[in-house]
Amino acid sequence: MTDPAPFTFDTLPTPALLLDEARMMRNIARMDTRAARLGVTLRPHLKTAKSVEAARRLTGGTPGPITVSTLAEAEAFHAAGFADILYAVGIAPQKLERVQALRTHGCDLKVILDNEAQARAVAQAGVPALIEIDSDGHRGGLRPEDPALVRIGQILNERACLLGVLTHAGESYGVRGAAAHAEFAEQERAAAVAAAEALRRARLPCAVVSVGSTPTAHAARDLTSVTELRAGVYMFFDLVMAGIDVCTVDDIALSVLTTVIGHQPAKGWTMIDAGWMALSRDRGTAAQEVDQGYGLVCDETGRILPGLIVSGTNQEHGTVSLRSGEDGPVPDLPVGARLRILPNHACATAAQHHRYTVLPVDGGSLQSWPRFGGW
Amino acid sequence: MTDPAPFTFDTLPTPALLLDEARMMRNIARMDTRAARLGVTLRPHLKTAKSVEAARRLTGGTPGPITVSTLAEAEAFHAAGFADILYAVGIAPQKLERVQALRTHGCDLKVILDNEAQARAVAQAGVPALIEIDSDGHRGGLRPEDPALVRIGQILNERACLLGVLTHAGESYGVRGAAAHAEFAEQERAAAVAAAEALRRARLPCAVVSVGSTPTAHAARDLTSVTELRAGVYMFFDLVMAGIDVCTVDDIALSVLTTVIGHQPAKGWTMIDAGWMALSRDRGTAAQEVDQGYGLVCDETGRILPGLIVSGTNQEHGTVSLRSGEDGPVPDLPVGARLRILPNHACATAAQHHRYTVLPVDGGSLQSWPRFGGW
Repeated sequence: MTDPAPFTFDTLPTPALLLDEARMMRNIARMDTRAARLGVTLRPHLKTAKSVEAARRLTGGTPGPITVSTLAEAEAFHAAGFADILYAVGIAPQKLERVQALRTHGCDLKVILDNEAQARAVAQAGVPALIEIDSDGHRGGLRPEDPALVRIGQILNERACLLGVLTHAGESYGVRGAAAHAEFAEQERAAAVAAAEALRRARLPCAVVSVGSTPTAHAARDLTSVTELRAGVYMFFDLVMAGIDVCTVDDIALSVLTTVIGHQPAKGWTMIDAGWMALSRDRGTAAQEVDQGYGLVCDETGRILPGLIVSGTNQEHGTVSLRSGEDGPVPDLPVGARLRILPNHACATAAQHHRYTVLPVDGGSLQSWPRFGGW
Repeated sequence: MTDPAPFTFDTLPTPALLLDEARMMRNIARMDTRAARLGVTLRPHLKTAKSVEAARRLTGGTPGPITVSTLAEAEAFHAAGFADILYAVGIAPQKLERVQALRTHGCDLKVILDNEAQARAVAQAGVPALIEIDSDGHRGGLRPEDPALVRIGQILNERACLLGVLTHAGESYGVRGAAAHAEFAEQERAAAVAAAEALRRARLPCAVVSVGSTPTAHAARDLTSVTELRAGVYMFFDLVMAGIDVCTVDDIALSVLTTVIGHQPAKGWTMIDAGWMALSRDRGTAAQEVDQGYGLVCDETGRILPGLIVSGTNQEHGTVSLRSGEDGPVPDLPVGARLRILPNHACATAAQHHRYTVLPVDGGSLQSWPRFGGW
């Protein structure tokens, strides 16, 4: 799956998605250490990576437990040897046929759900499931005290399909600092454990108690009674994570290489060949203390050019300028110069590309790792 | 390139990108009629379509002049028989080798530029070029009165590479109604024609005078001295275009089919399996009079469900709720029900998908048209 890229760094066509493998390995090791110290199984979420090579590095070289966001991911990772897979988006009954096909071929694929209609369909299909718990009002899931929890557990248990409970503190992205993230981590733990206890009180099994998000996974102090931890974007990190102090900008392993194609000197604009098609439309830092526009600008070696952001995008054009409020000077960026743009949101930016061009740990020649998409 | 889809409408996995061919053909005919009446060559922009089948329909069944936004598009459309191609993003000197390779293989590929560094590289490579003119302060380009225009023209003309001038009124997307768009159309015409005249006064050739954007192309009253018209999104339309009265929502040919996966009744939320990965992060209607969230919600037949929008998205989750300020009731949308979401921005939403599932004009079985991406 990994091939030498057909280009050297100097001849790489732009825009291109760059992956700094050394940073990625450092980010992976940091999370592995945390999971080990917290005494839980790490089940990395591969919705960010969508790459078999990246997945192997996440699980220590051999296939381990993983989380996916689409059945296309489940199929691709199963074909690459991963067998313990959690599909962590509420199951649509129409998708159960594909789930069953994977299970028939030896994939231990599990699904999640939060309502009785799903539970009946899943039980009928005989697919193991986790019940989604709402720990922070973010999205789906049942509150642990909701009487529907036990009813759903019973429906699943009648067909021996009840594996456990799962929660995700999506709201943790909205607060800054380890102390605030630790509170969300405790909220995740408390909600998931309360739900597990409610099921057990009703004499239902609950083997798995699964929690996690990148901010809470990095900040959790105690995961007593939790069995597994999920997180995804930690392998790459991005400006949104840096903006809430989960990482520094030096940890960001992903960037978009781009070329200067022109200037509007009167406006202080430098035009580049990376627009929203290469960077994504994600404006995740817009609500943070420092708005990074469509990304932070570095030179081609990755050194940050202070104050410069991608302030605007069209489909294949980006506009680089000083962040509002910053004083000049704008560095000389002639036509043909290349820049690296650090992304707001690694999941969204990576999704715009078909491959990673990997700057390998050992500093050798570029590698090319295919990415997949679709559903 | 077109194949029967491996699914019927009822078994189509979600999320899926649907294309209503009858609407698309109506939109194409409308623009063809306008270009004919205005007496200009239409050069459709294929950055939205990125599909050979769609391209053929845009050019009346046989390859005609087209515009592209990437060299990957130029290569794919040339391989499909298109030979008259304009690459309408300012050329990076590093890309000229690929341009020359296409030209050597019989593709009449033209580039655009707005500075002397580009002009020198393009002249040296012997590639025909248009000079980009700034008619509205939107992005790149030279003002027609800029003395650099003639200098660049001279650099190109020394190697017989000066084809003409081009402008694009990107700011026309920010105003509403045909009268306002007609003013931008006249600004495009006036700037491009003034630039052509400046070149001709300097005894430089200017065979091509190219203007266009979807709003201005639909509103232009007179294109005297213009030779060609460019537009792209008109074939599909979207909520941004409907929001500025270039079309109605009934003209929108593109939608995302999705399935209901849950509810949060206390919040009035219906959860669907289309998040920003399927819809894109584009929030182009946010600054319009009616903010459509991440898209307008229809039932699976395409009938609008009044007041319902996709109010939030995560990667693979969408939240459907009433538009802020709207009163209930929310229609009954049980788990497993399917909906169609009309997109804010067709270019961005289509870019998230690898194929169109086409509802054919004749009402026959679904077709599958591959899309390509990358650079």
